[in-house]
Amino acid sequence: MRILLFNPNTTASMTETGLKAALGVAAPDTEVVARTAAMGPVSIEGYYDEAFAVPAVIEAAAAAEAEGFEAFIVACFDDTGVEAARCRVGIPVLGICEAALLMTSPLAKRIAVVTTMARAIVPLTELVHRYGLSGRVTVYAADIPVLALEDPASDASARIEAEIAKALAAGAEAIVLGCAGMADLADRLQQTFGVPVVDGVTAAVTVAEGLGRLRRRTSKRGTYAPAVPKPYIGLLASFAPPG
Amino acid sequence: MRILLFNPNTTASMTETGLKAALGVAAPDTEVVARTAAMGPVSIEGYYDEAFAVPAVIEAAAAAEAEGFEAFIVACFDDTGVEAARCRVGIPVLGICEAALLMTSPLAKRIAVVTTMARAIVPLTELVHRYGLSGRVTVYAADIPVLALEDPASDASARIEAEIAKALAAGAEAIVLGCAGMADLADRLQQTFGVPVVDGVTAAVTVAEGLGRLRRRTSKRGTYAPAVPKPYIGLLASFAPPG
Amino acid sequence: MRILLFNPNTTASMTETGLKAALGVAAPDTEVVARTAAMGPVSIEGYYDEAFAVPAVIEAAAAAEAEGFEAFIVACFDDTGVEAARCRVGIPVLGICEAALLMTSPLAKRIAVVTTMARAIVPLTELVHRYGLSGRVTVYAADIPVLALEDPASDASARIEAEIAKALAAGAEAIVLGCAGMADLADRLQQTFGVPVVDGVTAAVTVAEGLGRLRRRTSKRGTYAPAVPKPYIGLLASFAPPG
Amino acid sequence: MRILLFNPNTTASMTETGLKAALGVAAPDTEVVARTAAMGPVSIEGYYDEAFAVPAVIEAAAAAEAEGFEAFIVACFDDTGVEAARCRVGIPVLGICEAALLMTSPLAKRIAVVTTMARAIVPLTELVHRYGLSGRVTVYAADIPVLALEDPASDASARIEAEIAKALAAGAEAIVLGCAGMADLADRLQQTFGVPVVDGVTAAVTVAEGLGRLRRRTSKRGTYAPAVPKPYIGLLASFAPPG
Amino acid sequence: MRILLFNPNTTASMTETGLKAALGVAAPDTEVVARTAAMGPVSIEGYYDEAFAVPAVIEAAAAAEAEGFEAFIVACFDDTGVEAARCRVGIPVLGICEAALLMTSPLAKRIAVVTTMARAIVPLTELVHRYGLSGRVTVYAADIPVLALEDPASDASARIEAEIAKALAAGAEAIVLGCAGMADLADRLQQTFGVPVVDGVTAAVTVAEGLGRLRRRTSKRGTYAPAVPKPYIGLLASFAPPG
Amino acid sequence: MRILLFNPNTTASMTETGLKAALGVAAPDTEVVARTAAMGPVSIEGYYDEAFAVPAVIEAAAAAEAEGFEAFIVACFDDTGVEAARCRVGIPVLGICEAALLMTSPLAKRIAVVTTMARAIVPLTELVHRYGLSGRVTVYAADIPVLALEDPASDASARIEAEIAKALAAGAEAIVLGCAGMADLADRLQQTFGVPVVDGVTAAVTVAEGLGRLRRRTSKRGTYAPAVPKPYIGLLASFAPPG
Repeated sequence: MRILLFNPNTTASMTETGLKAALGVAAPDTEVVARTAAMGPVSIEGYYDEAFAVPAVIEAAAAAEAEGFEAFIVACFDDTGVEAARCRVGIPVLGICEAALLMTSPLAKRIAVVTTMARAIVPLTELVHRYGLSGRVTVYAADIPVLALEDPASDASARIEAEIAKALAAGAEAIVLGCAGMADLADRLQQTFGVPVVDGVTAAVTVAEGLGRLRRRTSKRGTYAPAVPKPYIGLLASFAPPG
Repeated sequence: MRILLFNPNTTASMTETGLKAALGVAAPDTEVVARTAAMGPVSIEGYYDEAFAVPAVIEAAAAAEAEGFEAFIVACFDDTGVEAARCRVGIPVLGICEAALLMTSPLAKRIAVVTTMARAIVPLTELVHRYGLSGRVTVYAADIPVLALEDPASDASARIEAEIAKALAAGAEAIVLGCAGMADLADRLQQTFGVPVVDGVTAAVTVAEGLGRLRRRTSKRGTYAPAVPKPYIGLLASFAPPG
Repeated sequence: MRILLFNPNTTASMTETGLKAALGVAAPDTEVVARTAAMGPVSIEGYYDEAFAVPAVIEAAAAAEAEGFEAFIVACFDDTGVEAARCRVGIPVLGICEAALLMTSPLAKRIAVVTTMARAIVPLTELVHRYGLSGRVTVYAADIPVLALEDPASDASARIEAEIAKALAAGAEAIVLGCAGMADLADRLQQTFGVPVVDGVTAAVTVAEGLGRLRRRTSKRGTYAPAVPKPYIGLLASFAPPG
Repeated sequence: MRILLFNPNTTASMTETGLKAALGVAAPDTEVVARTAAMGPVSIEGYYDEAFAVPAVIEAAAAAEAEGFEAFIVACFDDTGVEAARCRVGIPVLGICEAALLMTSPLAKRIAVVTTMARAIVPLTELVHRYGLSGRVTVYAADIPVLALEDPASDASARIEAEIAKALAAGAEAIVLGCAGMADLADRLQQTFGVPVVDGVTAAVTVAEGLGRLRRRTSKRGTYAPAVPKPYIGLLASFAPPG
Repeated sequence: MRILLFNPNTTASMTETGLKAALGVAAPDTEVVARTAAMGPVSIEGYYDEAFAVPAVIEAAAAAEAEGFEAFIVACFDDTGVEAARCRVGIPVLGICEAALLMTSPLAKRIAVVTTMARAIVPLTELVHRYGLSGRVTVYAADIPVLALEDPASDASARIEAEIAKALAAGAEAIVLGCAGMADLADRLQQTFGVPVVDGVTAAVTVAEGLGRLRRRTSKRGTYAPAVPKPYIGLLASFAPPG
Repeated sequence: MRILLFNPNTTASMTETGLKAALGVAAPDTEVVARTAAMGPVSIEGYYDEAFAVPAVIEAAAAAEAEGFEAFIVACFDDTGVEAARCRVGIPVLGICEAALLMTSPLAKRIAVVTTMARAIVPLTELVHRYGLSGRVTVYAADIPVLALEDPASDASARIEAEIAKALAAGAEAIVLGCAGMADLADRLQQTFGVPVVDGVTAAVTVAEGLGRLRRRTSKRGTYAPAVPKPYIGLLASFAPPG
């Protein structure tokens, strides 16, 4: 099976972190290819950046399907552009927030998402709500910029551990790491804290593999039906839905 | 007060419809200027088109604030890009779905939204849920393309009336028109059916005026804080949040 | 446009506070007339007082409509008698809790209502729930009697500020003042705290103006249909619904 | 144990119906006294009538407590004035909608409330929601005036049976009769339809008896704390909360 | 009326505690018989023990009905096996969590359940949610094993009081005791704390008496229809539903 | 990876159906072993049968862990005993309802579960609610006994197809088959109806494989902590939690 892991921000080192984690869990017969957005923000921190990351996501999803990939993963915990991409392609499109919640939910009742910036708490809480887990999930923020995760000199790791400790004291039974840039931390944190610590990139790889083995793809009836062919103009003309 | 009414699709006739309706309700001391997106889809029909309408929305919101407009209205019933735009500017940003629901909710308990395409039912139902009115609002679709509203030869009007009749029979007490292109129909339909029929464009003008008189603007604390300055690259580089 | 601002308690100084605030935001072509209840409690603090404030509300609403007013505002944050009044008249009837939430919701995601007495927390939380904003609004109480707001020697103002500070620390992005008697505080508190601070009386004036310009009135189909004509007896006989 | 069964409308024949049903279920050591409102509407049909029934409810509750009654039942399915009365007295105050739902919920998962007028569907649905049973209860209306129940020549009974049949076909497993005036129909309808048919008046008698045996009364901490002593003026001056 | 009070764990002293409390509230014409499970766990602490307590519950319910008892109470706050038992018998089956919530809900808006072990917080919170009271109930745990309640030398009582104090400080208006073994504490704690303190065993006796007087039994339509006759094999063969 | 697929009813032919489906999707390096309950009901149809299927589930889960299996699947759409089993073992325990919903949710917004007996609609609707998907999932029943699925002469298949057609007409975008005995139908039905048709047995195999590759197991903190060691007596003594 061939999976495209797409980093919707333009920071290649974060793509590398994700790919390395993905390869650590992929099945022997799975090929994971990682790509970095060639346009858009260097990091996605809130609704604004997210809006400008979507065109690259769509473009990459369409290309992935055309090249024969069988699943497409958006490696940003905001699940940026996932619903739009599902209208564009038939192969499964997975967000890493969704995948992390799916794979954690059979393991624990009360789950803490630990993310980076405080301003993401509301959008991620809305995302959790969309996935139906409001009653079981609380979102915590370590109050660090996303790119601090790429900087070994930052105190990002210590701050994340402090939030996990706080969440466990408040009753959390498992941890979900709320940023693609944390993919390399999951195993160590699980060892430190003794509860399941789930990263979305690796979770998404396994969900993609599962859908591949089940031979199930995106429904083309209703919400995710192909966009109606029509002209787009100006800067974004090339994104017009194909006829 | 100066309000910018922005049509996020590229169909100028729809902008005209909206502007005419807006001028019909604006206060004597309000100036409404309407603009049409210069890039993106000719009509917005579902998650896919929506994604490509957002950049034009942000650009227009930033320009409006820079030019001294005091409120910005996104004239598409998907409330396309509204949350992202709120992170970009301090002037109030209003979606027409949100505004229509706000102004209808004191008038009736059970509200029917009547929109165009069936595939919009799920996204609009999610939008209604986000605005907290799930228990009171049902979404109906007339099953017509958005641009049929611009075509006098289509049976759009008859189909919309049929859906309204169905909604009233099921207990609806007021109607919200679920597409900017229906702005000119509200008065006639209200007369025909004898219940409040609310259009979002005109509703948004009055909410904008209200916020102007109250001198209240978007909170810059938390979710709608300004996007963190950072580089964007490629096609969308010019949208990078200002420092 | 002519709006009747009705204070459902019998304390005239509170009516004055509300009227002054209302006039500060009303459009040039709006006339606001304020009236004080001639029967009922001097202040409304909980379910009990509320029950005895309703007859005056209905009487005033009916009179307002008969005199040609085009909107009716109930200036008590419990939205006392609002639903009953909507069954009595066709002009829009607005509660100030509802109006404040409507006008604040486009400005911020997480909202704190700061009210007076602790015992109002449950009724106001239920009211917020009725308006669909449970997930976004938290109610705080300054633990002061309503009439302390009319007493310059009280520490009401300091206690309100303390609650606002607490709410902001807990993540609130905007403040709604939860008592008609606070209408004069909004501008100063907004300046102090740097977030939108919304008062319900002024918010209701702008919603009333908006509905006036939209020419939309209460639906008379279903829930708010006119009360069925029938005899009332005893003390309240004069309130029988007209035939 | 002594229970006061209060009919908040002024129609004495309905009081008689309720009392007869109450006596049919009361324990041997229970005394049930029934009283009819001496002021207010002849029947309660929607928010408007309800507002004017509340003062009589409060007056009767206070008198009941003063006379040594140990529980107070409001025999109207809108649970008119129940929350305000709880702020006035310490003895348990029961609404018949609440009591019927409480006693039916252990007997069946899906419950249909069958009421009189269509306009009551929204208020009763809100009441069901307040009691936490939204997911399990659907409200049906036989579309008859309340007083038709008192008129043997009306087709009220046939219409109620038709609604019950419709509810059962849609999956209801038990029926709650949604009007005090239906108290005498429960046994017969239960026999006819072979599912539990619960009337609120009799249900409330048993809940009152239960609270009596448990020696549990209304909490005076928080929401139902006694109303703060203060002057009331005008027509309603005599209702001012005692000091 | 004859009620069977069944303790689904095998600790007879806990049965005695429950029976004594039950007799303290039962009507003069009620006979309460208590039985202890003859198979299964000595105490029920979480999902695991609960699973093995169910067969004894069903067996006891079937026997109770065969012997002419008119109601069956499961005296464990997890409401162990209550839904399965309802499919087996026609007499009312009551859980003590459900009964306690039913009888407390008319007395107070905000309710605290105080239970024993911390691991029960999630299952009891789910149970509260099933009964529709999520918005009004918070679950606290004294962090003691169930059987500590039977040991006079333990500090169970002090820990329970500490949790009640914490709950009241957080706004609780009434207390529900979250374990059958606490049935003897309710009166004393009510006296100490001055708010309603409700025990489920006694609450269930009064609900059972109420349903008896109402002559209402479990609905046999839909969810609680008798189990379809079929063979069971092995250890549990004798539990096969009768034909 | 070694997975134990456990059929909690005693009908071996249903185990065979499940195993065959499971092997059709398992990865090359996965070993699936299927076992049939040696005690309990021949089919699980509602709360009653479910209760008596749980002991066999727990026994099988404990044995599976002891024998080195790395995941345990309960192949009944009621997710019988899944939560209790999670308290007994550390390896992941998956219900097929949960797994089917997890794997379908990224593929479609509106999902229909099509099950066998009408009486299962309420329990399955509660299960869907527990998994957070109430707003997106509707449960349909073909009104056939479970074992009709094993009988080629029955009209089970035609009835299931009729329910699917009804669900699609009502807006469903994907189908989940609501019984382990339908595992062999999924591929054919997907072909017939052109939307994703997901079976829980195969879905659970892929979720188990995913958790295996992620090396994530059940949290032992909080709700799923090991049952406290204690004696069990009588018929079920051997199930006492180990010390």
